[in-house]
Amino acid sequence: MVSTHEILRNLVSDLWNKYTRHEFVERLRDGSLPMDVFRYYLIQDTKYVKEMQKAVIKAASKAPLNEAIDVLTAVFSNVERGAEVHERLFRDLSITEDEVNNTGFNLVNYAYTRHLYYYASLGWPQFLAAWAPCMWGYHEIGRYVVGTRNELFNVWAGFYASNEYWSRVEAILRALDKYEVTPDMERAFRDSVNFEIMFWEASLRRDPTVLY
Amino acid sequence: MVSTHEILRNLVSDLWNKYTRHEFVERLRDGSLPMDVFRYYLIQDTKYVKEMQKAVIKAASKAPLNEAIDVLTAVFSNVERGAEVHERLFRDLSITEDEVNNTGFNLVNYAYTRHLYYYASLGWPQFLAAWAPCMWGYHEIGRYVVGTRNELFNVWAGFYASNEYWSRVEAILRALDKYEVTPDMERAFRDSVNFEIMFWEASLRRDPTVLY
Repeated sequence: MVSTHEILRNLVSDLWNKYTRHEFVERLRDGSLPMDVFRYYLIQDTKYVKEMQKAVIKAASKAPLNEAIDVLTAVFSNVERGAEVHERLFRDLSITEDEVNNTGFNLVNYAYTRHLYYYASLGWPQFLAAWAPCMWGYHEIGRYVVGTRNELFNVWAGFYASNEYWSRVEAILRALDKYEVTPDMERAFRDSVNFEIMFWEASLRRDPTVLY
Repeated sequence: MVSTHEILRNLVSDLWNKYTRHEFVERLRDGSLPMDVFRYYLIQDTKYVKEMQKAVIKAASKAPLNEAIDVLTAVFSNVERGAEVHERLFRDLSITEDEVNNTGFNLVNYAYTRHLYYYASLGWPQFLAAWAPCMWGYHEIGRYVVGTRNELFNVWAGFYASNEYWSRVEAILRALDKYEVTPDMERAFRDSVNFEIMFWEASLRRDPTVLY
């Protein structure tokens, strides 16, 4: 039997490829991504992650208790590991917390995070479907990029490629697999994959960041 | 300077003593608590904990993200430890999950858990004040009871007396201390201490359990 997360991905397999093999990803891998683009991306991603985490807790408050605890512990238990990687990247690129807070969202990032809040308000399975592309896709991307000749890109990819990160993804896919795919879930998943593609593109273009 | 959690406790010090040195507690300590009362209590407590955990996640969805993550990880990261202790007690007393699910709440338990949901809907500091007496008081009680000649009571108390349990309490008190006491918080804290006292009394009386 095909699991819910596999069904969702199979429904959007072309888009999934565009997301995980995007020009942005290829240039992380071959080391040719300009550092100012990576820096721009990292700030937007940091802003994204904070909103995503708030949306996770909001959605978990509507989940069956055992699933909520499983997912929350998987995602938040070793946040230090991700924080360490971020600190290293922030230090090397001279990014401060203040700069992150004083930088706005680009339109794609703002729309994507509001989309996560929207599905968190709709319900737990809908949220899981909206959330999975970001978590799951980054693991694939991390594994694809790891080994790149650029040391910073390699630190970045190493985190997402790690078993520790994969255990977070697994908890989400495990929760998702308890539910049958609905039209809402399919829409949430597909739109999130589209948002991930647009996120790369907005970063390559370094879109204006005016939304707070 | 006196911390928020100390201020709250000092405001209700007589009640706090009634709670943590209640006849129920003294009889756990001297081993004279009838086993059918303990069994009744454990089932009610298990039902309470599930509702409490749901209220925690609900309240955390309104908290500043760093506090939410700090508290959620502290409380949920080692749930297995508490689960093991519970399993041991459940096995020895022949309590099954089905029995817990098919037993209703007594009125005190129902009122107490709805009170937690109510404060979770009001806001994070209010919820922390409502929640602290249960978590914090049980650590004191655990330390007071541990060493009792009754082996089951000792297993029970050992869990609450542990450093692992204390680290959960600390996260809650640390979050609470970021806020100044408000009338809402004082009321929430005081009522919860009263509920804890009533919880012991309802257990000693083995009140009817008709609410679902």
